[in-house]
Amino acid sequence: MTGQGCLIGVGTGPGDPELLTVKAVKAIESADVVAYFAKQGRSGNGRAVVEHLLRADTTLVPLYYPVTTEIDKSETAYVDQITAFYEQSAETIAGHLDDGKTVVILSEGDPLFYGSYMHLHVRLANRYPTQVVPGISAMSGCWSLAGIPIVQGDDVLCVLPGTMAEDELERRLIDTQAAVIMKVGRNLPKIRRALQRSGRLDEAVYVERGTMVNGAMQRLVDRAEDEAPYFSLVLVPGWEAKR
Amino acid sequence: MTGQGCLIGVGTGPGDPELLTVKAVKAIESADVVAYFAKQGRSGNGRAVVEHLLRADTTLVPLYYPVTTEIDKSETAYVDQITAFYEQSAETIAGHLDDGKTVVILSEGDPLFYGSYMHLHVRLANRYPTQVVPGISAMSGCWSLAGIPIVQGDDVLCVLPGTMAEDELERRLIDTQAAVIMKVGRNLPKIRRALQRSGRLDEAVYVERGTMVNGAMQRLVDRAEDEAPYFSLVLVPGWEAKR
Repeated sequence: MTGQGCLIGVGTGPGDPELLTVKAVKAIESADVVAYFAKQGRSGNGRAVVEHLLRADTTLVPLYYPVTTEIDKSETAYVDQITAFYEQSAETIAGHLDDGKTVVILSEGDPLFYGSYMHLHVRLANRYPTQVVPGISAMSGCWSLAGIPIVQGDDVLCVLPGTMAEDELERRLIDTQAAVIMKVGRNLPKIRRALQRSGRLDEAVYVERGTMVNGAMQRLVDRAEDEAPYFSLVLVPGWEAKR
Repeated sequence: MTGQGCLIGVGTGPGDPELLTVKAVKAIESADVVAYFAKQGRSGNGRAVVEHLLRADTTLVPLYYPVTTEIDKSETAYVDQITAFYEQSAETIAGHLDDGKTVVILSEGDPLFYGSYMHLHVRLANRYPTQVVPGISAMSGCWSLAGIPIVQGDDVLCVLPGTMAEDELERRLIDTQAAVIMKVGRNLPKIRRALQRSGRLDEAVYVERGTMVNGAMQRLVDRAEDEAPYFSLVLVPGWEAKR
């Protein structure tokens, strides 16, 4: 027992290793333990981004999700399984912290903004010294890559999950200057209809996270496909439309 | 004439130099010209964050705002003055780009998210090769510093300017899981009333950008003062309240 360790939630940004912050690089390089979420049998996107920073003697702790596909999240079985997973993961991390280790938990994007890290943060931050290193969010990576000014001045920005009902999405799109629609995936046809009905389709831009590395982007009206990767985004710029 | 230069809009994050991205550090270190916005006679917050990265032969281009206080932004005189300033600044930058220089324009926070850089971006990005390096936004710096999970799962997040009318603010606070209220300053009493009326006051957290460096934060109900610095934020967490 060497005294209590320290927990650091580290945002790994949208995928480009150069979009890690200096603070994130230092935290990862000096950590005793680096934990990360991944699908069973995969090495995880968050880990891939920091691979070059890991030392030979860094202890790696993969946390494998028990559920890998998009099943109905309202089902009790799912909730029970995922809750047990977070409980168990938190205790695994607590074990390292009790050993006095500095433990970094990687989080894609920004840790406290829709990140899986949050489930461990709420279970551990009240028990151990904890620090959160912010990361560039996926949405910021997307609008920067696309070169789209998203909000200015007194604009309202709404971040909306694409899972929401079509009427609700339409209502919210009418009621905001700018919007970011997350979780596009199979919701793309519905999102397209809501944008059309709210009169915002012409402004909407589709960006595929991580894959449009050459700064490419696409107006949603120019995109034929009716499905998209789960982690793609639709941006509805505020300021640009008003100028 | 050595051919066309390259414009790079670089986010400097919330104020901690370690929250610059690796890409931002490299861009600033290798730039021929580093331009930044500042109040007349000041060196600017964005520049202070990157001071250690500037070379002896880096050409510095301060862009001094003609208007330094919060005057009524709807006044024609203000609009004319600020528009002329952005036009003139864009031409100054264009001059360096025409000389074949690599020009970095610093932007506090994230360049395309309420940043002054946007005014130059829209005037130059269609004329010169342009890249935007995202930065950690002030709001992300704040919720990370405060250790507050802001949104999870299907939460809606609304970014609201504190300048908006009280009824409008109340309505929007009722209609969202999470909110970030920007531009607090003299609007604090109104924001407090809108939070109270929407039943969200107890959850609201006040964070002062840059000054609460030891991870301090304050529940808004515990804050006595009725004014706040212009760049302070109020966070209304989504997920936390539901757990």
